[in-house]
Amino acid sequence: MNWYTEAPVAIDPAVRERARNRQSQLTKPPGSLGRLEQSAIELAALQGRDQPAIERALIAIFAADHGVAAEGVSAFPQAVTGEMVRNFANGGAAISVLARQLDVPLQVVNVGTVNALEPLPGVLDRRLAAGSGNLRREAAMSTELCEQALKVGAEVIDTACDERGRLDLFIGGEMGIANTTAATAIVCTLLPAEPVVITGRGTGLDMNGVEHKIAVIEAALALHGARRLSPFDTLTKLGGLELAALCGAYIRAAQRGVPVLVDGFICSAAALVALRLNPEVRPWLLFSHCSAERGHRMLIDHLSVRPLLDLDLRLGEGSGAALALPLLRLACALHNEMASFESAGVSQK
Amino acid sequence: MNWYTEAPVAIDPAVRERARNRQSQLTKPPGSLGRLEQSAIELAALQGRDQPAIERALIAIFAADHGVAAEGVSAFPQAVTGEMVRNFANGGAAISVLARQLDVPLQVVNVGTVNALEPLPGVLDRRLAAGSGNLRREAAMSTELCEQALKVGAEVIDTACDERGRLDLFIGGEMGIANTTAATAIVCTLLPAEPVVITGRGTGLDMNGVEHKIAVIEAALALHGARRLSPFDTLTKLGGLELAALCGAYIRAAQRGVPVLVDGFICSAAALVALRLNPEVRPWLLFSHCSAERGHRMLIDHLSVRPLLDLDLRLGEGSGAALALPLLRLACALHNEMASFESAGVSQK
Repeated sequence: MNWYTEAPVAIDPAVRERARNRQSQLTKPPGSLGRLEQSAIELAALQGRDQPAIERALIAIFAADHGVAAEGVSAFPQAVTGEMVRNFANGGAAISVLARQLDVPLQVVNVGTVNALEPLPGVLDRRLAAGSGNLRREAAMSTELCEQALKVGAEVIDTACDERGRLDLFIGGEMGIANTTAATAIVCTLLPAEPVVITGRGTGLDMNGVEHKIAVIEAALALHGARRLSPFDTLTKLGGLELAALCGAYIRAAQRGVPVLVDGFICSAAALVALRLNPEVRPWLLFSHCSAERGHRMLIDHLSVRPLLDLDLRLGEGSGAALALPLLRLACALHNEMASFESAGVSQK
Repeated sequence: MNWYTEAPVAIDPAVRERARNRQSQLTKPPGSLGRLEQSAIELAALQGRDQPAIERALIAIFAADHGVAAEGVSAFPQAVTGEMVRNFANGGAAISVLARQLDVPLQVVNVGTVNALEPLPGVLDRRLAAGSGNLRREAAMSTELCEQALKVGAEVIDTACDERGRLDLFIGGEMGIANTTAATAIVCTLLPAEPVVITGRGTGLDMNGVEHKIAVIEAALALHGARRLSPFDTLTKLGGLELAALCGAYIRAAQRGVPVLVDGFICSAAALVALRLNPEVRPWLLFSHCSAERGHRMLIDHLSVRPLLDLDLRLGEGSGAALALPLLRLACALHNEMASFESAGVSQK
């Protein structure tokens, strides 16, 4: 038994029941706060307390390069991965702005850029390899490398929990030129689904680019015999270092009792692997948004989830999850601070 | 010519163009921040500045009673309107919690509760009548009363702009037992649409209750000859004091150069009247969410808008608009603070 198949923290149904009961007493027509009511109830249950809150949150961005970029599957050059890590560190990226505005620490983790980077503030150097292998021609990772990448994700969660006493919410993000190709290959294998149905434009391919990307993914699935791959081998052969780290972080978060707010397509693909490796992780994963990347809607339908936001986002970096964070915080505040019919002297039905 | 048909502030297309240009230079794939990009561009244009922001916002809740409550069209007793005004003042209502969390002033305006209320902190007493008339049996308001209610809305905007120098955003909200009946009657008249198609459950009617509500609305439309009513007369005969005040506030906001974030079904009905009275108000109205109230989706489709949120909310009080406010603030921060490709040294396509 590997660490990543160990059970998550048990959830106390009594806390959920008390939260549900409290919602019914607040001064509003029952159910009128819609999906925010359920969000508050779930956070209370996951956090195991009657007053859910998101004070100690963490955003961690895992960055890595992908050998499959050599196949010309991205609209941007591979150099952008490392350049964006510097941009994260310098505070100029979307997620840098969001983390600052939300007052949430931003941890950047280099799991494997193609070139080594100079030491950067806020960037943890866990560069396991010079990017993953070209999944169109070879395995993206060896078994050992994939295990190491999973552990990097777990390490980030463990360190944050140990240093800060507790973590109220974890948001994972990713940066890696060509990683929609890897994520699509994973989703095609695990759902399963045909590449022609779910392959999308990534950072902005034109129609010819998408056609080519589909052909690359089809060739990769054939090369690795995708129909017979286990979830772990799917991640190893078709994934990437940051995808594996995200997967490990999600599983470890559940094992440390930390609710996860999943970002868009790439993060959902990592979450899908996490759920296949360890199905009990499921209640710990909250889904933030439905992205504009073509395969995401099919993936969230497959998972039977309805994310909070639907804003045509397709940036990654954990940005969609960060944008949904205020909704969860406000859901908690409403749950904790609203008056009851009795305390406010308001008549009921 | 009435004050409410006077032209809104002119919008400078050069500001919009500069904002659009700036979005294209930020370190993200073009378009990848989805609808937040357009939100930032529109706010820049409406605010007439290159760095849009929502610092000085106002939430105003207009409360009034409805004579049609006597027909048994609401799941809650009429006393709740006044009780909720007290709850707003005491900080226990959903919008009270949200305004506090968002650090936005909350102005409550009593436009006409059925009983007079004692002086309450933060509540402006503009009680024009003991509620509106029962629209099933008589006109909801006289022409004069409706004009007065429109002016109450304008007064709230003028006072806020004069006292605070400028207002970056206005959120209107409403409280009034039975006001989905009035709003539905307005929407049926102006779209036009059949009551059986758009009448919803309001605060929580069962199916029999909805059937009865449909019959009441059909009778009201027949009584007032809805097919021949002007927009102003629609508001007068079928509306309500808080609906008229909201309508006046929306129009005055546009005339003072203040962007509006429209809440759910009731507020959208008031916005619909505003647009029929003064079509040039259109660009000043941003739509926050699609509510669970049945007619709202049809109404927003009619207006060709796609609100930011879709969370099954049906509370009113301006709560859905308040919940969308963080998204607009973050859209502004991203627009203003992200690095450009050039400044961050990130490669482009």
